[in-house]
Amino acid sequence: MSTINDQFSHLDIILASRSSRRQALLRQLDIQFRMTPLDVKETFPATLPVEEVAEYISRLKAEAFPTEKILSHTLVITADTIVAVDNIILGKPEDDADAFQMLKTLSGRSHLVVTGVCLRSKNNIRSFSAITKVKFKELSDYEINYYIDNYQPFDKAGAYGIQEWIGKIGVESIEGSFYNVMGLPMQQLYEELRNFSL
Amino acid sequence: MSTINDQFSHLDIILASRSSRRQALLRQLDIQFRMTPLDVKETFPATLPVEEVAEYISRLKAEAFPTEKILSHTLVITADTIVAVDNIILGKPEDDADAFQMLKTLSGRSHLVVTGVCLRSKNNIRSFSAITKVKFKELSDYEINYYIDNYQPFDKAGAYGIQEWIGKIGVESIEGSFYNVMGLPMQQLYEELRNFSL
Repeated sequence: MSTINDQFSHLDIILASRSSRRQALLRQLDIQFRMTPLDVKETFPATLPVEEVAEYISRLKAEAFPTEKILSHTLVITADTIVAVDNIILGKPEDDADAFQMLKTLSGRSHLVVTGVCLRSKNNIRSFSAITKVKFKELSDYEINYYIDNYQPFDKAGAYGIQEWIGKIGVESIEGSFYNVMGLPMQQLYEELRNFSL
Repeated sequence: MSTINDQFSHLDIILASRSSRRQALLRQLDIQFRMTPLDVKETFPATLPVEEVAEYISRLKAEAFPTEKILSHTLVITADTIVAVDNIILGKPEDDADAFQMLKTLSGRSHLVVTGVCLRSKNNIRSFSAITKVKFKELSDYEINYYIDNYQPFDKAGAYGIQEWIGKIGVESIEGSFYNVMGLPMQQLYEELRNFSL
């Protein structure tokens, strides 16, 4: 899509991320932006409620962005997504067995996906987050193993991508924003971008 | 994706549809199937509740499929999707003004998307449907016109595609299956395919 929505053409938008999923999503707002990777140690206070962790980490990332690279029209976007079950956060699986265990945990019940986003300019910083409830059907061992073998979900929090095979055969219903589960709460992000003052 | 899930490899699956969206969705079940177009007059009794219209039409389509082409391992899939607001069904828009009016109607409120699916074999027929509630934010005239001009949603019931720009900037939340809004209730379809007896 070469169409450009000109609402944000006065901004130099930088998505500070390595995620090709977030890149693809943001592009679908029909806006122009650049990407730069950013390496941040994702730590958070142990007492922080799970619902607030993603936003906290997105802010850490924004604050870690080099200040000297933020010019008067720069707008930096950072984001973080977590998957939580019973107040326990599922990270990225380390191996097949870990992925299997996570998908067993998610099977036949609902969990929360929270994406936090931080917008940072020279003189302003603003963060927010969105929560989506996702309900998986009872997954069979065959289905879990088929997915892990064929899709290698080791870069995904909770060991699944809702846009992949397992999201199609396994997710019964969601409540909230679908794109939030993929990595960016698109409607809310669009609104926040419109309302953000440099 | 060249991966093939072999659960359905004993079937000759035919998607009787012209919809490239449905084709793309069904392919993501990692199954092999063929497509054949099917032209059916989409009429339904005026007294039918709106929630039942999509399933009724999907069955009409399945019944219109040429019986002589259904062999012992053939499984025909047909589907229909409707968008309903206040018990009124929004069809495909005829022109810009019609699309504008539909999106104005959907703006700032919730509506229902119902997809009906019918599975037909030589000796069996089974239909079902899924309902998803979709909530749009208040859309500005600029946003509606930008979308119509750039995405030409004239092949879409209700004049929008949730996977397109307007779905990203406009849909606040959904309740139910996301893929149902795109045209197939994927998780339910997968389960029905597994349980269907030829």
